[in-house]
Amino acid sequence: MDLQEATALLAQTPSAFDALLRGLPATWTSRNEGAGTWAPIEIVAHLIHAERTDWMPRAKMILQSGEGEAFAPFERGGHVREMQGKSLEQLLDELARARSANLAELRALNLRRDDLDRRGRHPSLGAVTLSQLLATWVVHDLTHLHQISRVMAHQYRETVGPWSGYLGVLQCAGHSS
Amino acid sequence: MDLQEATALLAQTPSAFDALLRGLPATWTSRNEGAGTWAPIEIVAHLIHAERTDWMPRAKMILQSGEGEAFAPFERGGHVREMQGKSLEQLLDELARARSANLAELRALNLRRDDLDRRGRHPSLGAVTLSQLLATWVVHDLTHLHQISRVMAHQYRETVGPWSGYLGVLQCAGHSS
Repeated sequence: MDLQEATALLAQTPSAFDALLRGLPATWTSRNEGAGTWAPIEIVAHLIHAERTDWMPRAKMILQSGEGEAFAPFERGGHVREMQGKSLEQLLDELARARSANLAELRALNLRRDDLDRRGRHPSLGAVTLSQLLATWVVHDLTHLHQISRVMAHQYRETVGPWSGYLGVLQCAGHSS
Repeated sequence: MDLQEATALLAQTPSAFDALLRGLPATWTSRNEGAGTWAPIEIVAHLIHAERTDWMPRAKMILQSGEGEAFAPFERGGHVREMQGKSLEQLLDELARARSANLAELRALNLRRDDLDRRGRHPSLGAVTLSQLLATWVVHDLTHLHQISRVMAHQYRETVGPWSGYLGVLQCAGHSS
């Protein structure tokens, strides 16, 4: 993994979510795929929650404690508290701020090539490296961009009529673990 | 289908592609998922090709000829010519310009509610309505945003290590027809 390459993408994804979602009618931002699924606004809140509790806290644990102590498990419902009383626009602003602060903190660590191989302990996956954690940060953004595009497309699954079979995103089952 | 709702999204997706891709290292913008698949730069060129040859030309055919004459088939390889000699940044600029011109042309049609039910003839799908065409324009953007996030994630499919199973986008098979 190339750290510059990974952080270049991490620096841009909050703007991509912003450009896609800000100011759109609620059809696109607040509807989900059915009971128990997330609307785009909830996904943005989840991304903020991960900024606060997952990536940099775990990176620092790897550097400080190695495999000695397992990461705190990630709280999948943490977005509910994160979004209380906030508009989508406020959440998009918060995501941009939180990401920017985390990337500044990451840069300040001045990681060297061999730091990326240092290991920590995931509560269910066991030994993981810092480079795997940072790559997961990137792919987690992309998983949720993939999800948001699917959730939005879902709102027009009937409206497209016979074109439905040509539109890959409408065939996507979600693939969440 | 609500025309305001559809066009609100169509007006924002080019900026979302731009925010996601502009200036990124080639790892993210020029790598694909293997032989015969598209990299993000090719997907952007495909979106431009569709702006020029698909959506508004077909909408005008519906209004002018109804079901009398089938649409010209869409050329899936048309992006190759579209991207010749151009950088990703030039393509992103072109997509924004082409989309903006098409939305201005759409607004100038002053469509009424019952115009949306007017029919045209697709060369393979048969009768389709104007509202189905416009909804497909929207979901086509989302299909390719879904695809781009998957293509980018693919580059880190090994790098994430044991997290792979938790990341939905890495389980996505593409679903293209």
